[in-house]
Parts: sequence; structure tokens; C-alpha cells
Amino acid sequence: MATQTAEDIERLLDGAATGSRASLARLLSIVERGGERARTLARLAHPRGGSAYNVGITGAPGAGKSTLTNALCTEIRRRGDRVAVLAIDPSSPFTGGAILGDRIRMGDQALDDGVFIRSMATRGHLGGLALATPSAARVLDAVGFPWVVVETVGVGQVEVEIAGSADTCVVVVNPGWGDAVQANKAGLMEIADVFVVNKADRPGAKETRNDLEQMLMLRADRGWTPPVVSAVGTSGDGADAVWDAVQAHRAWLDASGEGTIRRSARIAAELRSIIAVQLAARAALLSAGPRFDEVRDAVIARSVDPWTAVDDVLEASETR
Amino acid sequence: MATQTAEDIERLLDGAATGSRASLARLLSIVERGGERARTLARLAHPRGGSAYNVGITGAPGAGKSTLTNALCTEIRRRGDRVAVLAIDPSSPFTGGAILGDRIRMGDQALDDGVFIRSMATRGHLGGLALATPSAARVLDAVGFPWVVVETVGVGQVEVEIAGSADTCVVVVNPGWGDAVQANKAGLMEIADVFVVNKADRPGAKETRNDLEQMLMLRADRGWTPPVVSAVGTSGDGADAVWDAVQAHRAWLDASGEGTIRRSARIAAELRSIIAVQLAARAALLSAGPRFDEVRDAVIARSVDPWTAVDDVLEASETR
Repeated sequence: MATQTAEDIERLLDGAATGSRASLARLLSIVERGGERARTLARLAHPRGGSAYNVGITGAPGAGKSTLTNALCTEIRRRGDRVAVLAIDPSSPFTGGAILGDRIRMGDQALDDGVFIRSMATRGHLGGLALATPSAARVLDAVGFPWVVVETVGVGQVEVEIAGSADTCVVVVNPGWGDAVQANKAGLMEIADVFVVNKADRPGAKETRNDLEQMLMLRADRGWTPPVVSAVGTSGDGADAVWDAVQAHRAWLDASGEGTIRRSARIAAELRSIIAVQLAARAALLSAGPRFDEVRDAVIARSVDPWTAVDDVLEASETR
Repeated sequence: MATQTAEDIERLLDGAATGSRASLARLLSIVERGGERARTLARLAHPRGGSAYNVGITGAPGAGKSTLTNALCTEIRRRGDRVAVLAIDPSSPFTGGAILGDRIRMGDQALDDGVFIRSMATRGHLGGLALATPSAARVLDAVGFPWVVVETVGVGQVEVEIAGSADTCVVVVNPGWGDAVQANKAGLMEIADVFVVNKADRPGAKETRNDLEQMLMLRADRGWTPPVVSAVGTSGDGADAVWDAVQAHRAWLDASGEGTIRRSARIAAELRSIIAVQLAARAALLSAGPRFDEVRDAVIARSVDPWTAVDDVLEASETR
């Protein structure tokens, strides 16, 4: 049975690698559902990957991240590359939101085999976004996408961390007084490798650029100063400049050795998430059942103290 | 060395059991600091206990919990019993706040050997209030206090749960429009075994009683309907009626068998907290160090996938 599942998943990976969008969609659904099949998928996908480059795109709600992402996809295609987009929507349940999202997002990219866009809903996923996102990115890497774009809303620590753990993190702000300040407050200034002033055809774009550049001067020198690029997602203006900035950052990561450090930190963070999830799952398992009740009764009868009782529970679970 | 510590702690327990307040204060400091000595203390204290009755007192900030607790202590002493009070102050660091609290609280009880009052600060305690409170209550039980009163502010899930897990939970409200509604919102209606309308000499006491009684009619029947008692903590008026209500609830717990169920649930909750803390500590330990770095590098090199890598880390830690 387990072998059959592994064979099924290998077949889906082979299918997705040769262009089957249906196979890829099924693989990402396995990731979303989590559990044993998702683990098998991670095990089989991991050795196939290693060549994708991750780009995080984040910013406040309404900053125009999706339209900018669409414009970037068009630009990436123009340059001849294939790209996969994960739009993380933590507020949606597994289905519904994600399906609706896919339809809304399809637009002009829908019929192009070189672009794959998936709205991922992770509410209820054990380990949450912090685990589901790298798992999904791993699958897209494994089936051969050279660029994996992860779009998250820049609100909430986990979302900001996910965007910041990409190889290149693009932070999207809008013209207008205080937008740069808000980005700073949300921790986005810290994680930005490239700033995009989106909707740059609106009043105040120049002031926002100035705000960002001034704030960047206060940031500790890390050998890379995030460029500030103007764009208009809806028209596609500036998408080429944004993508040039991403490429420049990638070249710097390679030349400086920072890329290796960042990738290592990303894997370490994922491993820590998995360790925490596995031990929390074990805690839940040990906190109920006949063995737990037995130990509780022994504590109540004062034949054992609670700490020693828990030691016994943990030891028994390990030698089983 | 460990034996010596255990001997020291046994000596402190013996001292506290024969009335040494200094020994008792040192024992509670061991609980506050946590760690190996706190575990040893739990191990040694647990078999000595089992006869104390826990009373939780909670309510909104400013409801007059401390003055009511003082009045109850006077009443308990009048009836010839000894009593220990733990005033939980989660906002204070280990020292400072707690020490100040002890001084403020001393007042008329300070010179009476039959009353022991301790402000416990637990910020930074591994496992927090949920672990520190039962540990401290265990020590007070072990050294022979028949009544252990735990006073928590009724704000925050953990604080409310701690009060609710006592044998009898006294919820303090004040006269005035909406106070009963606030108590309901904070989850206090659910955990109350006895209601006290404190500061009952102020206008609106009767209306608050009515509000509470109406809300109680909406509560599911559990075989016990919380009485609503009026009191004035500052003068001591009504303290005798409050204590009578606590005694009546205790008699009902004994007669109905609910007392055993409640005590069992309390021990189970403590065991779950300890399991969670122990496994979280293990997660932190496994998430750093040479072994972790080795595994991370293997995942980066794609010789192992992250889930299998974590399995290896967990297994290695168990057979060590």
C-alpha cells in the first residue's frame, strides 16, 4: 500500500516534470492536505530539486502584489524562462478560497504552459505556512521550474518570514505618505532585497522613493543595498526593471557567497519547524489514552510525582 | 551534589512543615526559578501532600480581589484554620514586583503564623503560570496548609484556567452596569462556583446580583448552582458568608463525586503542560549544535530529505 502510494507519487512527479498541469495540481493538493502522503512526496521530490531560484513577493494588502506578479510572469516568459507562482492565502480554508483564487488569477497567463499559478490555502495545515510553503516550493523545484515566486501578504510574522527566506525578497509599497513607514513597522524594511514602488503612476511616488532611500541609509550595511524600482503592475511598466533588479541581486548572492548562507538558513528553519511539529504531535499523542490515564491515576494516588511520571511516559514512548 | 540538594530540600520541607516561614519562602523561590532543583522539590513534595483544598479567586483588575482575600484570611483564622495565599502576578519579573507585592500585602496578616501570603511572579518561567502555580500549590500542600488560596487576575486564558482548575473557584465582580456581562465575556461565568459581589456597599449591587442570577439560569445544569454572595472586602462584611459558600461547594463536591473528577482533570492538565514543556525543550535542544548542522548540510546536499533527516535526529536523541 505504502509502495503503491510512492509509485503513484513518482508517476505524478514524472508527469508534472514533462508538463502535465493536472499532475502538478494533484501534487500540490497532497502538500496542502499534509500527513503521510505529503511526507512521501517530500522524500521523493527532494532529490529531484536544487536548481530553482526562489523569489518572495510581499507587501501590505492592496499593494497590488498579484498584478505585479502577473506582470513579472509576462516578463519572465518574454525572456524565455518558465515560472511557477505560489500565492499563499492563509485566511482561506483548503478548498474554496484556493479554487476561486486560481480562477481569478488565471487571466492572460492561463493558457501559457510556461506559467503555473497556484493559490495555496494553508489554514489548518499542521505546522502551518512555515511548513507548507517550503514543501510546495520543493515540488515546483523538483518538476523543473527554474523560478518559483512565493507571494505572501506582508502582515503577520510567519508571512513576513516566509517572504524573507526566499533567495530574493521583493517588497511592494505604494505611493503615498506613510506607506514606507508602515512597511518599516511591519518588518519589511529588514527583509527587502528589492523595493518596488507599485502604482507609480499615482501621485506621491517620488516621495515614497525618497522615504525608502532615506530609511535604507539607516539600515546596517550588509554588502547589498536594495534598489528601489518604480512599476505599474496593471500596465506592466517597470516589470523589466524589477526583474533586472532580481537578477542583479542573484548575481550578488552568487558572487558574495551570501546565497549559500541564505539557503542554509532556509533549510535550517524548515528543519526546526519540522522538529517542532513532530514533537508537538508526539506531545498530543502522549497526552491522552490508557497509558496517560494510568500515569495520571498514579500521580493522584501519590505513588509518583508528575515530573517523574512524564519522564516515564516519554521513555516508554521512545523504547516502544 | 544532587543528593546534597535533595537533602537540603527535604530539610527545607521539614522546616516549613514545622512553621519556618523562611524555609517556605526559600522553597517557593526554588519553584519560581524552575529547573532541576524545582523538579527535585516537586518529587519530594508530592508524596507529602494530598490534604490541601484549593480555592481560586479571580475577577477583573480592580475588583478588590486582594482586599477580599485578606478578609477571607481573617475569617479562616477566626474559624481556627491555617491558610496560604498565592497571588499570581504574571506581569512582574521574578524579583522586584513579587517582593514589593509581599510588603504591600502583609498588613494585618503579617504577624500571624497561621497565614502565609506570597506574591508569585512567573514571567519567564518555563511553562509559565500553568506549571508554576500547581508546583507552588503542591509545596504549600506538602508543608501542611489545609487551605491554599490562589488569586489570579481574570484576564487571559491561562489565568482564567488556573482559577477554574481550583477545587472551588470564587469569581469577584463589582456593582455597576455591565460588570456581570464583562465577567461573562472573560469566561468567568463558566468557571465560577461562587460569585462574590464585592464593594457591595456601592450603588448597583442589587442589579449586579440580578444580572448574575439571570445569566446563571442560561448556564447548563451541572448539579451545582453558584450562589451569589455580597461582601465588602475593606470592612470584612460578608467574608463569613463567602466562606460558608466555599464550604457548601466543598461539601457538594464530596457528596457528588465531582471533587474526584475535578482533581483528576487538574492533574491531567498539569501532566499535559509538563509533557508539552519537556518536548518543547527537547525541540530547542535538537534545533542547534553540531548534529543539527550535520543533518542540515546533508539536506542541502540532497542526500536526505528534511522529514527523514528529522526522524534521524529524533531517533538519535532517543537512543543516546
